[in-house]
Amino acid sequence: MVIKNKSKVKVIPLGGLGEIGKNLTVIEYDNEIVIIDCGLAFPGAELYGVDLVIADITYLLNNKDKVKGIFLTHGHEDHIGGLPYFLKQLNVPVYGTKLTLGLVKSKLEEHRMLADCTLNEIKLGLQIKTEHFKVEFIRTCHSIADACAIAIHTPEGIIIHTGDFKIDYTPIDGEVIDLQRFAKLGNQRVLLLMADSTNAERPGYTVSEKIIGENLTRIFGNAKGRVIVASFASNINRVQQIIKSSLAYGRKVAFSGRSMEKISAIAMELGYMHLPEGQLISVDDIHKYPADKITIITTGSQGEPMAALSRIASSTHRKIAIEKGDSVIISASPIPGNEKLISKLIDALLQKGADVIYNAIEEVHVSGHACQEELKLMHTLIKPKFFIPVHGEYRHLRQHALLAEGLGMDPKNIFMLETGQILELSRNGARKAGIVPSGSIMIDGLGIGDVGNVVLRDRKHLSEDGIITVVVAIDKASVSVLSGPDIVTRGFVYERESRDLLNEARDVVKTELDKCMEKKITDWFIIKSNIKYALGEFLYNKTKRRPIILPVIIEI
Amino acid sequence: MVIKNKSKVKVIPLGGLGEIGKNLTVIEYDNEIVIIDCGLAFPGAELYGVDLVIADITYLLNNKDKVKGIFLTHGHEDHIGGLPYFLKQLNVPVYGTKLTLGLVKSKLEEHRMLADCTLNEIKLGLQIKTEHFKVEFIRTCHSIADACAIAIHTPEGIIIHTGDFKIDYTPIDGEVIDLQRFAKLGNQRVLLLMADSTNAERPGYTVSEKIIGENLTRIFGNAKGRVIVASFASNINRVQQIIKSSLAYGRKVAFSGRSMEKISAIAMELGYMHLPEGQLISVDDIHKYPADKITIITTGSQGEPMAALSRIASSTHRKIAIEKGDSVIISASPIPGNEKLISKLIDALLQKGADVIYNAIEEVHVSGHACQEELKLMHTLIKPKFFIPVHGEYRHLRQHALLAEGLGMDPKNIFMLETGQILELSRNGARKAGIVPSGSIMIDGLGIGDVGNVVLRDRKHLSEDGIITVVVAIDKASVSVLSGPDIVTRGFVYERESRDLLNEARDVVKTELDKCMEKKITDWFIIKSNIKYALGEFLYNKTKRRPIILPVIIEI
Repeated sequence: MVIKNKSKVKVIPLGGLGEIGKNLTVIEYDNEIVIIDCGLAFPGAELYGVDLVIADITYLLNNKDKVKGIFLTHGHEDHIGGLPYFLKQLNVPVYGTKLTLGLVKSKLEEHRMLADCTLNEIKLGLQIKTEHFKVEFIRTCHSIADACAIAIHTPEGIIIHTGDFKIDYTPIDGEVIDLQRFAKLGNQRVLLLMADSTNAERPGYTVSEKIIGENLTRIFGNAKGRVIVASFASNINRVQQIIKSSLAYGRKVAFSGRSMEKISAIAMELGYMHLPEGQLISVDDIHKYPADKITIITTGSQGEPMAALSRIASSTHRKIAIEKGDSVIISASPIPGNEKLISKLIDALLQKGADVIYNAIEEVHVSGHACQEELKLMHTLIKPKFFIPVHGEYRHLRQHALLAEGLGMDPKNIFMLETGQILELSRNGARKAGIVPSGSIMIDGLGIGDVGNVVLRDRKHLSEDGIITVVVAIDKASVSVLSGPDIVTRGFVYERESRDLLNEARDVVKTELDKCMEKKITDWFIIKSNIKYALGEFLYNKTKRRPIILPVIIEI
Repeated sequence: MVIKNKSKVKVIPLGGLGEIGKNLTVIEYDNEIVIIDCGLAFPGAELYGVDLVIADITYLLNNKDKVKGIFLTHGHEDHIGGLPYFLKQLNVPVYGTKLTLGLVKSKLEEHRMLADCTLNEIKLGLQIKTEHFKVEFIRTCHSIADACAIAIHTPEGIIIHTGDFKIDYTPIDGEVIDLQRFAKLGNQRVLLLMADSTNAERPGYTVSEKIIGENLTRIFGNAKGRVIVASFASNINRVQQIIKSSLAYGRKVAFSGRSMEKISAIAMELGYMHLPEGQLISVDDIHKYPADKITIITTGSQGEPMAALSRIASSTHRKIAIEKGDSVIISASPIPGNEKLISKLIDALLQKGADVIYNAIEEVHVSGHACQEELKLMHTLIKPKFFIPVHGEYRHLRQHALLAEGLGMDPKNIFMLETGQILELSRNGARKAGIVPSGSIMIDGLGIGDVGNVVLRDRKHLSEDGIITVVVAIDKASVSVLSGPDIVTRGFVYERESRDLLNEARDVVKTELDKCMEKKITDWFIIKSNIKYALGEFLYNKTKRRPIILPVIIEI
């Protein structure tokens, strides 16, 4: 039995299944673990006030000595953003392509931990070897440069994880996805494929970045004034294309927004972005050139209120104001949940007199993920024995599973895994084999994991109906009220305009207190809960709202 | 001058421009005002805890005697939902088609004010006359039955307001849009067109409801178990189509969800929906029939957490649970802002084993609004002298204005109006002529307008970082602390798990208090503000969060 167990490969996703973000996949064999990606997730609206979400890595902390390294498919936050928190707990070597590591470096520098970390730049075509594993990186295309799939050669067979990918035959940087390598591995019997499901609901093919580039150039050709383009800072090829369109019309380029400035500097330094000497200008100098000789590339394509484009739109940017004749291109599509913010942004820019071009009216953005026909090509090249759809909500994973079935795969060989579930594989079979601890760790300010369900529930309640605090000082010896009740409130009604209501509320509390005093109740808990109940009913009847009621009794 | 002013028509939108919802348009001439629609808006996420938003009607209250009536284009909430609040303040006659008034009646009954209101059912083809106006209703198509455009014949010319509309040559109920009437009015010189801009960004035509009906019937034909369809309760023609598809396969129909039950009952009573005797069953009886003989039509297509479908998906519905083999059709598309809720709903249903069909994978819903080609047809038939794009955010209004320009309209005759702006028109010209009071009134529980910016700002702050209340009892005579400081907190950190932090916080407050006592400061305001500052800095340094700090001083 021991020997049999040893001869199995375990695949354990600790994030990224049934959700968008915090991708982290564990591959284990015997005494070794390798990890693919270490991302973060951005909190949904239900996670009130939370800044970031990372994966619970208890399982890895319990198996510290096994972990050989983290292999990164690409440099997006949902694949690398969890690294600083991970490496603080478990400092293992990190492997990735040059650009991916460039972005990781900058992140680790911000956390002042770069010196303590081991980053290993990989070379395509070479394998990293451990006792049981050989790990190789395979070129793919995605909405960030230098993206890779990862193939792990295990004693039981080859495991391929596509990372996020699409198939682009004419990418801006010329780095075409290495279909040959996938085909070759496909001929060597692939045990397991894990593939990106983000666009599994979408039929057809993803349009090439080249088409977007051509559209941008046409729009630049028609622009009479400045062109301001918002895009994801990490979409380096898109930014390169915007630069190309700018240069074609003799426009200088300025970067605006912290991440745009930072990432473009990294990309230029590492040779992933090219801007001829003298064509890059500072935002401070844009007024020195005619409007039709200026391009500003900026952050804020998601309508984030604090990002550069929103500040430009709301006239709170220190250096850039919308001028009549400006063309603003939003070269991005809304991340689900951001639709309304972006709509408001577009409205504000239009109202300031800018011409705004966005995907609903012109094709100025394309997804970085494979649509159905591309997924079919990948499955057909790789011909895996087993398949786990990854990267996506449940609906996407399921569509991807149905797609694989449609290609003739045995449904028994397709595994709809959940975060924390173990898939045990050997060359002969695969089965779900229990679960490991897993979940979401919330990061709020400096606190990691100290915001839990109680705090979130309170924040939700506070956001809907506010809070009312009742303070009373009681003389313990005589069981009598010394002072109060005083009532203060926030987020319930505006105190100044609701004096009558709050005076009545104070009377309700007073009556309740008197009753307690008469009965000589000295258990503060009972007094508090009586106040809560009486005041709660009173306020609900008067307002149909249920603020949090917080009684504080001071004993003198 | 007085005579000249008198001979102008004023058009004043009090809602619905630059926003989705709370449509209300004022048409004024001399001593008379007629109103088109009286809607509500659903609050965006930034309006923490607010239930509904209605238009500020101060202008109408200041011109009470002029108001002759409210004319309703159709029965959607964004066109009739403000009526109970409006009529409580200004009780004027209401005019509309039978179904629209049926929905209004039910609403007024809920507010227990039906007996006091005057509802007048209009007849298509007949005009309602006031001293200066003649008002007629013209059949249109929309995602609710019995929708109309409204033409107002004024002394200066004809004003046409399309309401929400689309062009459907094969509507389910056979009530084709009355293009002839629009054409005829177009020949009589139309002064002003106000037309629906919701889909002005979308090229082409809106697909006919008939196609959706055919798709639904095909899906019903393939379903092996129960079919559960979620749609908008008010989309009576869609519900009728679902009934038709059900009957075609011998399925009984049950309604689930309060608004679905209510609106379908009204629609059947008024003859807008037909379900043969014995085919309608109660949700209580669904277990009495085989699964493939049951259709459940339900609310909750927007993923609203309290609606029937969400409760079914989360296993908290009292009567319906998902069974293996169920097909769930979401015959609706996300209202912007609801995308994530709907995605979660789909995930939950799939995970429970249902087959889920939604618009991303099959065409089971179509918009109720005209796309660009339909708008062009309407403009071309009506040939207005002046044009105001209405119903939509600024981006939609602008696209609609561009579309009109593209048809050859003089840009000077197109008015991008804002809520509250007056457009003054005569047969010779039109101009913006100032503004009237306007805005959004927030309804939260029973309170109308008592939630303002201060309360909303506090709710936002509370939702992000929570609150910390500091209570201290001070002996005024001796200027010394009698008791406290006590610290209680909600939504900041979990008290039980953060005792150290809160103990330190108490020490910080204590130190600050001691300083104040030493200096014999008796101005509570100064003590409070010192506590706020010291504690705020301490907490920010420790946590990078800034909860609301509420110091309460009890004087003994």
